[in-house]
Amino acid sequence: MSDTQAYQPPRIWTWDAESGGNWASINRPVAGPTHEARLPEGKHTLQLYSLGTPNGQKVTIMLEELLALGVEAAEYDAHLIRIGEGEQFSSGFVELNPNSKIPVLFDRDSGSRVFESGAILLYLAEKFGHFLPEGLAARTEALNWLFWLQGSAPYLGGGFGHFYAYAPEKFEYPINRFTMEAKRQMDVLDRQLAKRPYLGGDAYSIADIATWPWYGNLVLGQLYGAGEFLQVEGYQHLRRWAETILARPAVQRGRMVNRTWGEPAEQLHERHDASDFELRTQDKLQRSNSD
Amino acid sequence: MSDTQAYQPPRIWTWDAESGGNWASINRPVAGPTHEARLPEGKHTLQLYSLGTPNGQKVTIMLEELLALGVEAAEYDAHLIRIGEGEQFSSGFVELNPNSKIPVLFDRDSGSRVFESGAILLYLAEKFGHFLPEGLAARTEALNWLFWLQGSAPYLGGGFGHFYAYAPEKFEYPINRFTMEAKRQMDVLDRQLAKRPYLGGDAYSIADIATWPWYGNLVLGQLYGAGEFLQVEGYQHLRRWAETILARPAVQRGRMVNRTWGEPAEQLHERHDASDFELRTQDKLQRSNSD
Repeated sequence: MSDTQAYQPPRIWTWDAESGGNWASINRPVAGPTHEARLPEGKHTLQLYSLGTPNGQKVTIMLEELLALGVEAAEYDAHLIRIGEGEQFSSGFVELNPNSKIPVLFDRDSGSRVFESGAILLYLAEKFGHFLPEGLAARTEALNWLFWLQGSAPYLGGGFGHFYAYAPEKFEYPINRFTMEAKRQMDVLDRQLAKRPYLGGDAYSIADIATWPWYGNLVLGQLYGAGEFLQVEGYQHLRRWAETILARPAVQRGRMVNRTWGEPAEQLHERHDASDFELRTQDKLQRSNSD
Repeated sequence: MSDTQAYQPPRIWTWDAESGGNWASINRPVAGPTHEARLPEGKHTLQLYSLGTPNGQKVTIMLEELLALGVEAAEYDAHLIRIGEGEQFSSGFVELNPNSKIPVLFDRDSGSRVFESGAILLYLAEKFGHFLPEGLAARTEALNWLFWLQGSAPYLGGGFGHFYAYAPEKFEYPINRFTMEAKRQMDVLDRQLAKRPYLGGDAYSIADIATWPWYGNLVLGQLYGAGEFLQVEGYQHLRRWAETILARPAVQRGRMVNRTWGEPAEQLHERHDASDFELRTQDKLQRSNSD
């Protein structure tokens, strides 16, 4: 019934800056800085430049978990990077992360830039000696799942999330393709978590900290409004794990940091001191009392 | 000019096993084994189950590089897993890798399963003490790029490659989306390699070994027949790096292992001994002499 001409790719691809959906303005076929600007600097050894997306949450949850253990050297400044405004393309940001993606960490102690959320988790786990088992077998299994997450989440975020929630039209084939994969990934996790409390085994580790912001939020219906579409209720072991982790105070703090959407009480745009969370809680109480 | 009705996703997604393009038969919305079968076992400490795709090449190149350094304990059996025939869904395979993807390594020495190609590279680098710098700054930078690859290649393989080469139709929007990202990623690498010989710095490392099978093959026009479409000639630093690595004898051996397509002389379906490559070379000479 359709007379639509089938698309044939040209011999040489050229960029049409107008296509691309909600995130079109920040997607480009070239890398490098678009403007000169220095990054802000805070008082702590660890300087984090991020946003409260799932990849951002991984690192702020990890840092809050370390602080909850009493690791004072994990004190950090979390600076907000507004990716919708292109702040990840500043010369200062690109110097730290040539890939222009959040999060990126600068450690004044080592003088190192650390980019890619998985690399940051591994770096912090090794720097402070927490959340990665020391025994070879347990360490290997935790790293299996850390790498699994880093290679799997692009199908959820750049695949399912983009086509289900952000693309300019609902395209049937990509939605089916990435929905199938998102469900398969949840089933992989669900079967694993039927046999053990945490992804790597008995111990909560950076594998869980990496995975919760993506598949934990997803299975709890907090990502892309896709809970019913994906029938997330069916993944009971994954849900038990997601709820257990969400109950951790450090997770509740970490997921607020650099968040600029949702309930105001769940947003802490910048974090420079542990007391920043208390101020937020007081705000919440004051609003509650004035209701 | 079209009367095509716009697609609207249903309230609850259901699986249509007929859609999915060239790889439809092996993509499923569920995990777990489909049949009972044990994996074959060889004589060496390291048992690899793989296929000569880019992710498979990473590990066989790493093992051949270790052997080229004289690390005899890196001797390995590389068993072929025919993913088109669903061998990754056997009970034996799923026990080693619940994600049902190649490659997976079993180390009889430690008794560990190691899955995800990035985790395997890190495991082997740490086990044998090669191809990952020991100093913290250099190690951190190499790991930045290893994790960059693991999170970026899904956009190239599961995104660009799928929609440009394998999907049942040429869908314009996804092709544009993933082409833009593939070009951006090549530019990220090209700018990095303008400043240093290898991704992590002066030393060839697992960051290069992970990245070459994807972006090295791509920029040399050996992936998806997309060289002209992507105008790969423009990425001169990336090309110099790709050619330098391709010239390494261990790379030339590693990329042949578990390969079941291309020129017969470039295929070594299984690798159980270093002499397997010599037999392949003799085959090639014999054929050449009989021409």
